[in-house]
Amino acid sequence: MKNIILDLDTGIDDTLAIAYALGSPEAKLIGITGTYGNVTVDQGVRNALAVTELFGHPEVPVYRGIDHPETKETFTVSKGSAFIHGANGIGDVDIPDATRDAESEPAVDFIIDAAKTYGKELTYVPTGAMTNIAAALRRAPEIRNLIGDIVLMGGALTVPGNVNAWTEANISQDPEAADYLFRSGVRTEMIGLDVTMQTLLTRAETAQWRELSTPAGRFLADMTDYYIAAYEKTAPGLGGCGLHDPLAVATAIDPTLVATLPINLKVDLDGPTRGRTIGDYDRLNDPFKTTSVAIAVNKSRFLDDFMRRVTSVAAASADQGGEDVRAQA
Amino acid sequence: MKNIILDLDTGIDDTLAIAYALGSPEAKLIGITGTYGNVTVDQGVRNALAVTELFGHPEVPVYRGIDHPETKETFTVSKGSAFIHGANGIGDVDIPDATRDAESEPAVDFIIDAAKTYGKELTYVPTGAMTNIAAALRRAPEIRNLIGDIVLMGGALTVPGNVNAWTEANISQDPEAADYLFRSGVRTEMIGLDVTMQTLLTRAETAQWRELSTPAGRFLADMTDYYIAAYEKTAPGLGGCGLHDPLAVATAIDPTLVATLPINLKVDLDGPTRGRTIGDYDRLNDPFKTTSVAIAVNKSRFLDDFMRRVTSVAAASADQGGEDVRAQA
Repeated sequence: MKNIILDLDTGIDDTLAIAYALGSPEAKLIGITGTYGNVTVDQGVRNALAVTELFGHPEVPVYRGIDHPETKETFTVSKGSAFIHGANGIGDVDIPDATRDAESEPAVDFIIDAAKTYGKELTYVPTGAMTNIAAALRRAPEIRNLIGDIVLMGGALTVPGNVNAWTEANISQDPEAADYLFRSGVRTEMIGLDVTMQTLLTRAETAQWRELSTPAGRFLADMTDYYIAAYEKTAPGLGGCGLHDPLAVATAIDPTLVATLPINLKVDLDGPTRGRTIGDYDRLNDPFKTTSVAIAVNKSRFLDDFMRRVTSVAAASADQGGEDVRAQA
Repeated sequence: MKNIILDLDTGIDDTLAIAYALGSPEAKLIGITGTYGNVTVDQGVRNALAVTELFGHPEVPVYRGIDHPETKETFTVSKGSAFIHGANGIGDVDIPDATRDAESEPAVDFIIDAAKTYGKELTYVPTGAMTNIAAALRRAPEIRNLIGDIVLMGGALTVPGNVNAWTEANISQDPEAADYLFRSGVRTEMIGLDVTMQTLLTRAETAQWRELSTPAGRFLADMTDYYIAAYEKTAPGLGGCGLHDPLAVATAIDPTLVATLPINLKVDLDGPTRGRTIGDYDRLNDPFKTTSVAIAVNKSRFLDDFMRRVTSVAAASADQGGEDVRAQA
């Protein structure tokens, strides 16, 4: 059993990642930690609490994380993020607030505690800014050797970025934190645009969720159709929306979904290419590589796994208070 | 037997690539075509003629190529190239001019003719600006399906460039030509800084050539020591000089020296990252990939092959007019 922490800026694909984790019998979602990017920490924590309840899993604790990068005073959602994820982060679909609150323990404390409790049985999956894990590694360096896998969604090594031609959105939020993570000595697996722009979902799949006629099914279909429509404008011709965060979770659970390149990475912090993930010449000839970058993906097997797992969550939610939610929808 | 054309801007590592090809029993060097980059076409053709004679191979024809990119009026050697390769391109070491001239047939005509004559038995190895092959493909599109392998030295996919943080020198000379090559549909194998900065030569190896006491051995040692000294200033801590062009030739002869990533590439032509080699989103989900990018290299096997082959050429040259050259040195 893999004990998983999802570190999310809970927008649309983050929500799909939650569903994927909850639909995976090999994994136990021991907590969601909130970061910023697609949305603010406040909005993301609200969404994470709400969707876990909608999915019938109110037992999943949600922790507030650091709400801005160390190099800035505040964080504001970009127009691009709001366009892709909607003003509320979940495609402007209305779902009820959760009946429970976020935990009082801060996310960074929870991450450190979990690393000490679960050790190699802990898999940490950050899919927003890397601020929380960088802070945890700085505060408790001893967890470097304790923690199991860190499988992050972020970066772009062999393809252009999605913020500009060289920067991917999650890395762009806090380049210093991501650079610290890559050069800290801790092992990481990077699921970047290299592979996530190859794993596409279309309205043919979202229609299957809608046909379930469950609250979660309708929510997932409406939310994801919003995302697909945004992709049709920002990436016409791609043929669907990228399943970024779900692929990171899927790989955390089943590493054989991707082929990886072992490499020592850095993030450009200065110059025109600030925010770019790229090989670190200082460690090019070091035989020990701390990052594995996914460079190829078994698309059809992942999409099969994705639909089976997410659909199972969407279907089951009807038995768990779904009627109440449906009345409000 | 592989029939090889080397398309060179004959500087220092180009000269080592010539020696590698001449020392390879599996390969026949059917011609050298001249391009620009490390040096002008005039200087590179002069050097190619001179070093082939010094290596005892005056039978290798040398062809003048296009001397500047289509987008510019002229070409001038950069200060960086002159620093790395010396003002004369071969480490400011004096060797006699050749006794023969370049061929009268232009390089582009020769490339087209060779593709039609040898077909899949032709391997073309460009290690400077990609201007000649782009012109050949434009003028005679039918050679796309005729030509065997195109194994180029150039580009940087997973590591920074060497002209600036994103551009490698050969691609920077004529980004339009390289982009045309990558997107023309012809199959290419890219040997970039990703691997060539891992294949390093030191003074321990060049000393072996000097100990041969042949004209070619002394020339190779002196020239390469100049290159190593330049690397010590531009890349301190790397621990040697990068064997860029020789690795391209070596891979053309023995593809198992590298592991490759199949990918469809483009070159950034606009914006701040002009000259960058990167994945082409327009063809990301096309299952047919036209480029194989080397992402790992068997360093020790390559270095063994390199020393055995180059040293054999350096040693043999003593029997072929070496005494005359030595008198002039």
